[in-house]
Amino acid sequence: MSNNLYDVAYDLEKALRESEDFKALKQLYDEVNADESASKMFENFRNIQLSLQQKQMMGEEITEEEVAQAQKSVQLVQQHEKISQLMAAEQRLSTVVTELNKIIMKPLEEMYGAQ
Amino acid sequence: MSNNLYDVAYDLEKALRESEDFKALKQLYDEVNADESASKMFENFRNIQLSLQQKQMMGEEITEEEVAQAQKSVQLVQQHEKISQLMAAEQRLSTVVTELNKIIMKPLEEMYGAQ
Ligand SMILES: [Ca+2]
Ligand SMILES: [Ca+2]
Repeated sequence: MSNNLYDVAYDLEKALRESEDFKALKQLYDEVNADESASKMFENFRNIQLSLQQKQMMGEEITEEEVAQAQKSVQLVQQHEKISQLMAAEQRLSTVVTELNKIIMKPLEEMYGAQ
Repeated sequence: MSNNLYDVAYDLEKALRESEDFKALKQLYDEVNADESASKMFENFRNIQLSLQQKQMMGEEITEEEVAQAQKSVQLVQQHEKISQLMAAEQRLSTVVTELNKIIMKPLEEMYGAQ
């Protein structure tokens, strides 16, 4: 086996790369990254989100100051048109990828589910 | 969009289902499950593995008795030809699925990696 399996995987990679959803995401991603101020705002937002998630996982307390800082960074990216478009495009791609995985994994899901 | 994207995902599902690796796994899985004694031995092994993993994640101590019980269940499945073939087939499939995912996710990996 199965050159064919990998051939089809490469076909799917190409179809994903050429999909409207991916092209829209790439376009927005490049636009935001080409804009120094937008890019810094988005990076700051991501860092704050990540730091809060890590604290929650470690069971550490989150201060009122940190909550206020996080809320402010959310508002900033929500008010920024390109960044909010980028985040929506990332969410769409994430949904697409989840759906693709569900389709591909069906043989295994059926096998283990039929026990 | 993209009917095409989902069409190709269904092609990949079909190619996975018809691959020698998946068919060999399915065959062994059905054989082990049709054998009451093999099926119970494998289930017992899985339950012990899962229980130890959960204890490790919760930071709970694992007793010498549990270690001995786990070692015994590993030996039993390793000495069982069909079960050890099934476990090897599962490992192969897992490698294939990881490789497929790497191929498909390349557009996103390149985008986020190029920052
Ligand atoms: Ca930049
Ligand atoms: Ca059974």
